[in-house]
Amino acid sequence: MNQIATTPKPPYYAVIFTSFLHDEADGYAEAAQYALSLAMKQPGFLGYEGVRAGMGISVSYWDSLEAIRAWKEHPEHRLLQQKEQLWFRESKIRICKVERDY
Amino acid sequence: MNQIATTPKPPYYAVIFTSFLHDEADGYAEAAQYALSLAMKQPGFLGYEGVRAGMGISVSYWDSLEAIRAWKEHPEHRLLQQKEQLWFRESKIRICKVERDY
Repeated sequence: MNQIATTPKPPYYAVIFTSFLHDEADGYAEAAQYALSLAMKQPGFLGYEGVRAGMGISVSYWDSLEAIRAWKEHPEHRLLQQKEQLWFRESKIRICKVERDY
Repeated sequence: MNQIATTPKPPYYAVIFTSFLHDEADGYAEAAQYALSLAMKQPGFLGYEGVRAGMGISVSYWDSLEAIRAWKEHPEHRLLQQKEQLWFRESKIRICKVERDY
């Protein structure tokens, strides 16, 4: 999925997730891949862009705040979120409304 | 600057810039560094996060749409923007309002 996401005409929503992994982050890559495969099946999922080189920045795109909330509360995603402290040394999530793109 | 940006309480604004470089992108690294040094001096600049590994994702944070517009129209930034097609094979800019973070 390492490509620029094809998204509809704004407005839509973006979740910017910026993070640093611990030196040891066993199981993270598989979990991230699995989480993405789940997210892609969620109603309102529009696309994903992610890069990691030391710091990681991933951006997922959604058609509404409700879709973001439903994904946050997805049972399997919640289980993964409980493990986040094992994997991430530091992280920040920003929920955004995309107003324009070009 | 490879760290998670310290940003104020929302709302504030984010510019998500996703891109792929051409195989040859002479002068890009220096230009990007210089552009960032200029951006940091702009009124309303709040922070920056950027990662490149094949695809690049950089996010700059601003206190208003006016600050983003002023940066877009900065004379030296405009000169750099004119060179973008030399450097970028593909790129997308998304202007967003950050509504929540945690």
